[in-house]
Amino acid sequence: MTQTIGEGDDVLLYLSRRRTYLVKVEQGKSFHTHKGYVHLEDLIGKDYGTRLKSSMETEFVALKPTIRDYIFKTLRKTQITYPKDIALIVMFSGVGPGSLVVEAGTGTGALTSALAFYAKPSGHVYSYEVRSEFIETALRNLKRAGLAEYVEVRNKDIVEGIDESEVDAVILDMATPWLVVAHAYSALKGGGALVSFSPTVDQVVKTVEALEENGFVNVETVECLVRRMQVARGKTRPETLMTAHTGYITFARKAIAEQ
Amino acid sequence: MTQTIGEGDDVLLYLSRRRTYLVKVEQGKSFHTHKGYVHLEDLIGKDYGTRLKSSMETEFVALKPTIRDYIFKTLRKTQITYPKDIALIVMFSGVGPGSLVVEAGTGTGALTSALAFYAKPSGHVYSYEVRSEFIETALRNLKRAGLAEYVEVRNKDIVEGIDESEVDAVILDMATPWLVVAHAYSALKGGGALVSFSPTVDQVVKTVEALEENGFVNVETVECLVRRMQVARGKTRPETLMTAHTGYITFARKAIAEQ
Amino acid sequence: MTQTIGEGDDVLLYLSRRRTYLVKVEQGKSFHTHKGYVHLEDLIGKDYGTRLKSSMETEFVALKPTIRDYIFKTLRKTQITYPKDIALIVMFSGVGPGSLVVEAGTGTGALTSALAFYAKPSGHVYSYEVRSEFIETALRNLKRAGLAEYVEVRNKDIVEGIDESEVDAVILDMATPWLVVAHAYSALKGGGALVSFSPTVDQVVKTVEALEENGFVNVETVECLVRRMQVARGKTRPETLMTAHTGYITFARKAIAEQ
Amino acid sequence: MTQTIGEGDDVLLYLSRRRTYLVKVEQGKSFHTHKGYVHLEDLIGKDYGTRLKSSMETEFVALKPTIRDYIFKTLRKTQITYPKDIALIVMFSGVGPGSLVVEAGTGTGALTSALAFYAKPSGHVYSYEVRSEFIETALRNLKRAGLAEYVEVRNKDIVEGIDESEVDAVILDMATPWLVVAHAYSALKGGGALVSFSPTVDQVVKTVEALEENGFVNVETVECLVRRMQVARGKTRPETLMTAHTGYITFARKAIAEQ
Repeated sequence: MTQTIGEGDDVLLYLSRRRTYLVKVEQGKSFHTHKGYVHLEDLIGKDYGTRLKSSMETEFVALKPTIRDYIFKTLRKTQITYPKDIALIVMFSGVGPGSLVVEAGTGTGALTSALAFYAKPSGHVYSYEVRSEFIETALRNLKRAGLAEYVEVRNKDIVEGIDESEVDAVILDMATPWLVVAHAYSALKGGGALVSFSPTVDQVVKTVEALEENGFVNVETVECLVRRMQVARGKTRPETLMTAHTGYITFARKAIAEQ
Repeated sequence: MTQTIGEGDDVLLYLSRRRTYLVKVEQGKSFHTHKGYVHLEDLIGKDYGTRLKSSMETEFVALKPTIRDYIFKTLRKTQITYPKDIALIVMFSGVGPGSLVVEAGTGTGALTSALAFYAKPSGHVYSYEVRSEFIETALRNLKRAGLAEYVEVRNKDIVEGIDESEVDAVILDMATPWLVVAHAYSALKGGGALVSFSPTVDQVVKTVEALEENGFVNVETVECLVRRMQVARGKTRPETLMTAHTGYITFARKAIAEQ
Repeated sequence: MTQTIGEGDDVLLYLSRRRTYLVKVEQGKSFHTHKGYVHLEDLIGKDYGTRLKSSMETEFVALKPTIRDYIFKTLRKTQITYPKDIALIVMFSGVGPGSLVVEAGTGTGALTSALAFYAKPSGHVYSYEVRSEFIETALRNLKRAGLAEYVEVRNKDIVEGIDESEVDAVILDMATPWLVVAHAYSALKGGGALVSFSPTVDQVVKTVEALEENGFVNVETVECLVRRMQVARGKTRPETLMTAHTGYITFARKAIAEQ
Repeated sequence: MTQTIGEGDDVLLYLSRRRTYLVKVEQGKSFHTHKGYVHLEDLIGKDYGTRLKSSMETEFVALKPTIRDYIFKTLRKTQITYPKDIALIVMFSGVGPGSLVVEAGTGTGALTSALAFYAKPSGHVYSYEVRSEFIETALRNLKRAGLAEYVEVRNKDIVEGIDESEVDAVILDMATPWLVVAHAYSALKGGGALVSFSPTVDQVVKTVEALEENGFVNVETVECLVRRMQVARGKTRPETLMTAHTGYITFARKAIAEQ
């Protein structure tokens, strides 16, 4: 059954890889770009994927936003958890439908959105954020992505403790993950996963030491590099610039004493 | 609520990063390794994550297998869709709870398992495999991972056509993806995603050309490199060897004519 | 014996890694930067490596330019033969003191300078450049680096033939290296090296095919990635951005028929 | 003038990229491989680059060894200064014809050979090695490469001091480079280069700190990755495995006080 665009729906207006716009479709609303404006109400009742022309006769495509698009639009320049890292964090953590997940810090909610998207509908994310100024932004981003009901954002410092127990995964994207390792051990189920994302080598060393001292096993750290290709017959080559570093991903699982 | 290990459950016996064993817990069954044997029935009623000693006093940990573990154990040496690539394929495709997905080829079912894991419980995967000798293995792997009910494996050549329509994503890990692009266009919803994984540059060029000629937009190709770190205070460094190449991932979305 | 800076000498004024200036020391000459001006004549008689203060009390260091500095200052933004590639080209080609080298194209003379630097004093570089507008710039850059006497720049299209014979190496940084392979074979000594630098996969494939069809052996192609580290106790990490691609380096050696 | 192979000359017998043999041509001597034997005396008077057949009719090519070949054959498995790193070390250090270079440790002489090759004929390398068991091997390798006259190997611990002064470059490939930084400062000319090669992050941090505290400027650290390509029309792709890490290269230059 084809989905059509309705009033109030989000649409990703695609112009080029570098130019996409996440907009809400509303009656009487126009969206203005350097390539002309688009009457968003014209999209109502159309299929997702529809091509449309702006006032300057430039073609846009009205895509349904995916979780990757929501994540990308949620990221701020100062954030470094890119979609590639989020993808690895999700798979390495084992988070999927039904997972109970603790996360810190919430930030603008990019990683939170991904965790909620994969854990829904029966799972839940408990996201800790000590900086209260981020909470509102994160909630707005989660709501826009239709994921707010699967997340509880807590305005607390996770370094002081985790309220939940028997969770499947603890995901840390914060400055001092090693200070949370003992709390994470208490909050996790046996065999549960801890995943930490850190930009510096020093953070990684401290976190790995804390994991090894606190009963975790299968501790491993990786970094992920993604390089884009320019593809065209006779001219194919990697792109000239790339992101050389976002952060290291450390993964571990909780072991419990022989019973 | 803590999960305990029951008879018939799968357990990942963890010895070291390079030595893990996926075993089924059964009464009266032992599991033998070069580090001694383990009485699997002793695990019944224990929590996941429990440490246990082998007959040679070597410590193992009984972990609950995650989707990543099932994928890894399903991979054969001849396969090159590593977990890192599967993670990116899943996120780039937008596949999540409820997604309808077409995939080819099934192979041993590693990527199929991942797609089913993230699409369940309400989504479904239709997986095409022309080589009938793979079907049984794939079904066994899917069943072991508890995902068989979310997958229909079709012993058909996807180059001849796709039976489904209005699907959310078409995922191709096969030798000639460009021959499937037109079928994929027909099978996809407006705005739906095609993701193709190919080892060679030539495959990428042909696929990108086919995508551009068949109404897809937002076509992009990346490669993903993951490097492992050796972490120890005062001795931290990247590992000496790494996998330099598995394949290129090409992503695109279906656009439809202005209506 | 310490070298002191004399009138007419080049000095690399170092402010920071991103801010260095290659200047000629002359009586009465000042050099102006956004951090104030420097009286260059004050450097006469000083040792290389001397720190000096600008009019705004910013510290500069007066370094003796190395071949790497000359190369870097000779590169234009449109050029992609970076020092890392030049370093590999030189070592893979075996060029050293006494080598006879043919090169094309000259461009602004960056790679030419490196080849001459390592081949001097008894070797020589014959550099072909079909675009006459580059010749003057290249000669100026070679002269500045003190290397002009070791180079003969030929305003000719190397695709039409190579005048030299019995050379040790042929180095190609041009759009159509495969058209030069047969000429290079004729010009090289037995066992001599051909090294080609090309940005696209297609160029590499054509060149490798030409090498294999024209009697070369030991044909191999690599790409080189250099990533910078930010080093500071407790905050060490790779830099955020890097050059993802300059070009592929293909290497081969001339074999001759059994005699 | 073509060079022909003479008695006593070294020849690199090339079978494939992974199979090359560095042998000395002598009367009456045969060289045995798994692909049959070769009468080396048959090569006398032939041109370098000549193809020859073994007793099993397998084709070899008799190449003149380049500095890269000597380096590669000098490396032991336990050594990690690969040709790519040697190439960057040479270029970053500015070492070229006439350079005076201090190096530690000598090891088997791979990096020493490269430094001597580029510094000759008027330059010189002073190479420190505290482990006396390496000296003989290094001298043998240097002699084989025809470079012994340009090198003085000192059986001393460079941590205790450097005998030379006013040298152009100090090159360190040893476990504790930071302990040599102050000595290197004393030994170098103003503006002279220090280059250090270290496998671990910790070594890099300590060395960079020592450089910044001891009057060096332009301190930078990089790592270099080389990935090989499999090139064949329609099947071109990067190779599956690569060396992920050898070491970090740190570079700096000596600044001296304003005079």
